[in-house]
Amino acid sequence: QLRLNAPEAMEYVQDLRDTFVDRVLSNSSDNFPEGMLIESYARFVEPTLLETEDGHRIRAGAVIIATGSRPVVPEAWAEFGDAILTTDDFFEQEDLPASCAVIGLGVIGLELGMAMARLGVEVTGIDMAETIGGIRDPEVAQQAIQIIGKEMPLWLGAGAELERAEDGRIRVTAGDRSVVVDKVFASLGRRPNVDRLNLEGAGIPVDERGVPVYDRHTMQVGDLPVYIAGDADAERPLLHEAGDEGRIAGHNAATGENRAFRRKVPLNIIFSDPNIVQVGARFDELDPETTAIGQMAIPPVGRALIMANNKGLIRVYADKASGRLLGAEMICVRGEHLGHLLNWCITKGMTVGELLQMPFYHPVMEEALQAALYDLYHKVEAKNDSPITELQPLD
Amino acid sequence: QLRLNAPEAMEYVQDLRDTFVDRVLSNSSDNFPEGMLIESYARFVEPTLLETEDGHRIRAGAVIIATGSRPVVPEAWAEFGDAILTTDDFFEQEDLPASCAVIGLGVIGLELGMAMARLGVEVTGIDMAETIGGIRDPEVAQQAIQIIGKEMPLWLGAGAELERAEDGRIRVTAGDRSVVVDKVFASLGRRPNVDRLNLEGAGIPVDERGVPVYDRHTMQVGDLPVYIAGDADAERPLLHEAGDEGRIAGHNAATGENRAFRRKVPLNIIFSDPNIVQVGARFDELDPETTAIGQMAIPPVGRALIMANNKGLIRVYADKASGRLLGAEMICVRGEHLGHLLNWCITKGMTVGELLQMPFYHPVMEEALQAALYDLYHKVEAKNDSPITELQPLD
Repeated sequence: QLRLNAPEAMEYVQDLRDTFVDRVLSNSSDNFPEGMLIESYARFVEPTLLETEDGHRIRAGAVIIATGSRPVVPEAWAEFGDAILTTDDFFEQEDLPASCAVIGLGVIGLELGMAMARLGVEVTGIDMAETIGGIRDPEVAQQAIQIIGKEMPLWLGAGAELERAEDGRIRVTAGDRSVVVDKVFASLGRRPNVDRLNLEGAGIPVDERGVPVYDRHTMQVGDLPVYIAGDADAERPLLHEAGDEGRIAGHNAATGENRAFRRKVPLNIIFSDPNIVQVGARFDELDPETTAIGQMAIPPVGRALIMANNKGLIRVYADKASGRLLGAEMICVRGEHLGHLLNWCITKGMTVGELLQMPFYHPVMEEALQAALYDLYHKVEAKNDSPITELQPLD
Repeated sequence: QLRLNAPEAMEYVQDLRDTFVDRVLSNSSDNFPEGMLIESYARFVEPTLLETEDGHRIRAGAVIIATGSRPVVPEAWAEFGDAILTTDDFFEQEDLPASCAVIGLGVIGLELGMAMARLGVEVTGIDMAETIGGIRDPEVAQQAIQIIGKEMPLWLGAGAELERAEDGRIRVTAGDRSVVVDKVFASLGRRPNVDRLNLEGAGIPVDERGVPVYDRHTMQVGDLPVYIAGDADAERPLLHEAGDEGRIAGHNAATGENRAFRRKVPLNIIFSDPNIVQVGARFDELDPETTAIGQMAIPPVGRALIMANNKGLIRVYADKASGRLLGAEMICVRGEHLGHLLNWCITKGMTVGELLQMPFYHPVMEEALQAALYDLYHKVEAKNDSPITELQPLD
């Protein structure tokens, strides 16, 4: 019988993590000229005047807030000490716990919960919501809960309460269910690191959460020479979006142009297995009157059968009249790639009919998308101006 | 120690194969009305007059030739009997041989050769060409030969000669190298099944290979009411292309319109591991004067590292002046998906700069493509009309 050597697995992951972190540092702050990087917490005195911990003051032509975010952990959980894990400390663990309650089943909870379950940890997944992974399409949510629920029990719809168990471990109770675990993984979301910046005191406009009020096309805060980028702004906490925000904030801070840029069509990928993917408009943002929905169930898909991963569902949304693709949600192996394809097509304003004129190789998971698109094509009014749907006349 | 139960593995594959074949039959010929399907070889008497084996004659308004192809096996190899395998009989084998020479390293030779090697067969790969998988870009060819050569010896640049070895097995000699094997897998290509149709006798124009002369946009043979589709025409023997050809031939045979349709931008995928993929214009079709080439080596790519499959190379081609994407060739894990993305973008006439404005999630193999595109972008003259390459101004 094969068994996992968990400490070796964790060390392997840590080594990879270190490689990636080193690479980022060596391409950024490591290259700053002497004196350019001041390592300190800073707070605003005025919108363009910062003070470091040692009282040093810096007057700037423009300021960019890029302070990132940190995991949300309820204060009351402090008493459980290192039995509470977050992404900050999970990757520092030298071994895996025998059992773990994952509280919060968004992207991080699902990815790490599923990984732990497959590595032999007894995982219980808990979320107050009735869905997982932020899925909004009820058909996709149902599939996802069924598929992932086979790998770890999912307790949905009730908040979790923690107490010390008699044996010193932690009893987690949610609704009428209860389990005693070694560790609790808190994946309740992240909060932006803007609470200790003295934003309000310095006259920087903030919303009810304390997050600076900014324009997502210019990244400018209010009408100040202050900009924000990345997780600090509490919107789209994704690397590629943070990159765009950094570029916009940097350009506008450096030039003072305050130029507005078009933001990306939304793309969310959860690297669960199968992937959970959301593209473009979300299900609950669609007008049922004007929207057509196509779908394909994964079980009969040839390539999925070959990969022994034939489970899931793809749902695609289009404007009923024009056939223009609006969005998609899916749980599906290789969904990450279908997400890119769909996103780029939505960005280009393509219709379902146009997509059906693209090549779909065989046997690939793109054929499952093709089947969903055929289903959708039959439901939209705009048809291709060709006697053969899949082909453009040459004349 | 884990060992493969080869007979069980073959049975598993056969079951899957049967499932897929049944599905095709039950969606096509199984549904023909009584008398619509005549099971017989047929030959042309005139372009619209066919004769079956029992002498029955059929006069048709139009004829579609869709007779498929069969593996090429040199006549001299007949003496080795069932020691010679092709795709026709490989999947009927109940066990795997201990050793096998794979002669011909195109798509089929690479896919099955690599599969056998990983299933424990002692494989020797042989091809007359100095490349494998039809790769034309010398940089990609070098990578592919190095990567796949680590899994099975590749003997390139010399034809194979077969003779009976003293122990009854087969001695395969190519150039100055020689090996004795249990089986020979012949993957020398496929020939169209048009040689026994009496095409010339019936006045149907054929080329020097005996293949009907036809127009690839109308699928019409000469100016006759005769059409051709699929492997029978000896061009692009791929399922999605055959589907297009069938649709065109069917439309034109039924309507007599002889309408011309735009054909797909080429896409070739070899399901080796890593995938070998070719998109759009081939390396040797490009004008070095007007073409820019970008590339990304896979070893440092984050996602490839995570997957422990960080080997290979992506090369992308664009028109130097306009920046319009022309083609790509790669050996790369998940290359099949990058191939679809690139193909669809080429179909839409997109430039390198436009591609860089699309979202690339993290961590995905699409980021390796992004790196190749950045490299390419620096080498083309057309730049994005925006102060930030990756973003479109909103105004």
